[in-house]
Amino acid sequence: MSNVTIKHLNASDANFSQQLKDLLAWDESDDLDIQQRVLAILADVRSNGDAAVINYTNRFDHRAIADASELELPKATLQAAWENLPAEQAHALQTAADRVRTYAEHQKIASWQYEEADGTVLGQKITPLDSVGLYVPGGKAAYPSSVLMNAIPAKVAGVGELIMVVPTPNGETNELVLAAAYIAGVDRAFSIGGAQAVAALAYGTATIPAVAKIVGPGNIYVATAKKLVFGQVGIDMIAGPSEILVICDGKTNPDWIAMDLFSQAEHDENAQAILISDDGDFLAAVEQSIHTLLPTMERADIIRASLSTRGALIKVDNLDVATDVANVIAPEHLELSVADPEALCAKIRHAGAIFMGRYTAEALGDYCAGPNHVLPTSSTARFSSPLGVYDFQKRTSLINCSAAGADSLGKIASVLARGESLTAHARSAEYRIK
Amino acid sequence: MSNVTIKHLNASDANFSQQLKDLLAWDESDDLDIQQRVLAILADVRSNGDAAVINYTNRFDHRAIADASELELPKATLQAAWENLPAEQAHALQTAADRVRTYAEHQKIASWQYEEADGTVLGQKITPLDSVGLYVPGGKAAYPSSVLMNAIPAKVAGVGELIMVVPTPNGETNELVLAAAYIAGVDRAFSIGGAQAVAALAYGTATIPAVAKIVGPGNIYVATAKKLVFGQVGIDMIAGPSEILVICDGKTNPDWIAMDLFSQAEHDENAQAILISDDGDFLAAVEQSIHTLLPTMERADIIRASLSTRGALIKVDNLDVATDVANVIAPEHLELSVADPEALCAKIRHAGAIFMGRYTAEALGDYCAGPNHVLPTSSTARFSSPLGVYDFQKRTSLINCSAAGADSLGKIASVLARGESLTAHARSAEYRIK
Repeated sequence: MSNVTIKHLNASDANFSQQLKDLLAWDESDDLDIQQRVLAILADVRSNGDAAVINYTNRFDHRAIADASELELPKATLQAAWENLPAEQAHALQTAADRVRTYAEHQKIASWQYEEADGTVLGQKITPLDSVGLYVPGGKAAYPSSVLMNAIPAKVAGVGELIMVVPTPNGETNELVLAAAYIAGVDRAFSIGGAQAVAALAYGTATIPAVAKIVGPGNIYVATAKKLVFGQVGIDMIAGPSEILVICDGKTNPDWIAMDLFSQAEHDENAQAILISDDGDFLAAVEQSIHTLLPTMERADIIRASLSTRGALIKVDNLDVATDVANVIAPEHLELSVADPEALCAKIRHAGAIFMGRYTAEALGDYCAGPNHVLPTSSTARFSSPLGVYDFQKRTSLINCSAAGADSLGKIASVLARGESLTAHARSAEYRIK
Repeated sequence: MSNVTIKHLNASDANFSQQLKDLLAWDESDDLDIQQRVLAILADVRSNGDAAVINYTNRFDHRAIADASELELPKATLQAAWENLPAEQAHALQTAADRVRTYAEHQKIASWQYEEADGTVLGQKITPLDSVGLYVPGGKAAYPSSVLMNAIPAKVAGVGELIMVVPTPNGETNELVLAAAYIAGVDRAFSIGGAQAVAALAYGTATIPAVAKIVGPGNIYVATAKKLVFGQVGIDMIAGPSEILVICDGKTNPDWIAMDLFSQAEHDENAQAILISDDGDFLAAVEQSIHTLLPTMERADIIRASLSTRGALIKVDNLDVATDVANVIAPEHLELSVADPEALCAKIRHAGAIFMGRYTAEALGDYCAGPNHVLPTSSTARFSSPLGVYDFQKRTSLINCSAAGADSLGKIASVLARGESLTAHARSAEYRIK
């Protein structure tokens, strides 16, 4: 017996909206104690540079670093990790990297400009970020796929220097992570982690260069540090627990769907896996598959905890209702395991990524389909996007007025500036009126 | 005598880098006391809705609101403000709105997809945000131009509902702001402000709808509230003091350049206006213009304070050095008041907006040139962009695997997932292998 009890909801119930709200509730309240500890680390690294970084690294990662030069993982180490990889893994990693790169190339934004009748030129110029820091967690959450997903879009954007930090507790490196860094084009790598690594990337030390933006996942200390250095540098999103929402018309193999739910649930106890169907018998069949398959899973305990506390099977009257529910959830991952996924997809307004059709397992997107696996969680797909090349590019507005343009625009600006009592603005514009 | 003393720097000085760093230093340290007060307001509005909003509004804005229905500014009030505007202001506002809209149309991002040889389809779907909240400050910082700049890109993106909040201390409305809201297409408006308005937009009340993203400038309470609700909703950038950097070859009228510097300095005492030139005599001439013109300015005290504490005249050996300095500053506004602005522009990597040529006063961009006047400040142009249509659109990745695609990708995903010890991921992919 699998010992898992998963919630059953019905979208026709009068109080379904509230039930759904309760199911989705996820409050990552800011822990003031953690914030204070992180602030102290940031201030220390900002003031004391390498010495502070070495101190925290020795203490938290059980290292015995004596000199700052030991912090860097030489390029040769990354290359050796790649060259020593078993052929099957090397092939898989290279294929994934190539596909991620091909998709990313489609995301590049380009400069444009247009000229008006009076000769005034308006435009938008695109430039890559000069440098980016990529945080890679150590230990159990060290995922080479995550290195590819964060590093490749940055390099496609044209980022000049991509600096990876990865903690190596007790000096142990993850060879797959180093190999992924090598083929993704990471320029330099340092064996540091935690808030001290974020601080080093934000402020720079004698050894570690300051960057313009820091991306990549991390624990609560890393996430807090990223929030606190935001402004000094750019950051990517702060990720919540992973989520999958599967909408199925009842015609996909229930074992497949159960395993798709497991594939998010296995990430962590707070991960959320939800299945919606208009077919009650199918929901029962998937539940049966869950019971049957769970005992065979290596991460059965995590999956059980996730499904029991945050999972749900939702019955809807028809699949249109399913898309309404999906738009409320705004899921990170949405599987449309139905006969006509295009029709449903057209009704989805909010989702990080949509996996269309019975063959598109969400796991393919995690590794090698091409689109990024760094996606908005916790309903933030209502207002944000997957990580992409555009996160490593920025825009500059261009205005080049002809004499005639400055004359006509100057008159308009003068009226509006005086309406706002900003006389210097007005007079600056008026100087250019003929 | 104008009583202004402006710093002189020379880029050839040995310690110029440090001098420049000191000049740019701007530490908006988070005030924990303000944070606590804002947190209390957010929690109160989240729990008590309209009642809390009314309470704070009556207290802070000296209102006597008895019923939540009084919070809304009816559409007819906005329309009346527009219809009662003097013709010259109405024409200027309409012209500016039209130009901002035309430029914004160029920024729209579009969905795309491509099909691979085995029938797998990958793509990116673009959707607008459902709803956006626009914060507009009351009192002296109430700028109708700011309403246009924030509202129009949202409507061009296709945002369904655009909700403006604007405090009306003592019940006094700003007719230009209401008129701008009307022609910019604001859907609903509420006469509330401060942290309580941000909370209402983030969490929703019985009267005020929750939105997906909140944009627009505000005081420290508003900025703090926006930071704290980020995650629940999206937010735009947090703006620092306004800045202008002018690079001039010495051939522009010194009075023009002095007034361009004034036009940012008049915003606030912390605004920053810097001039760089390779012509020492020209720097002296502009300084003389500053002395001569300052006493004639309505906001002379603010300009004097700004130029004295944060302004600078920087001598460089040649204009290439000027672009190097500009890339360190990463200014919000950059004027290239030179004979060949295109040549210099090509060397600029970081700036919010570039104003090219002697006729392009920065003030034209503030009101009516077309590009947005909401721009990255405090060197954040190193990693961020002007506000634009793209801030009101979001991306969803699309993956639709053919049976053949699921087979070949499944094999890759299986190897990588097993390398990460994520067996459910692997098995989910393996089910789809033929």
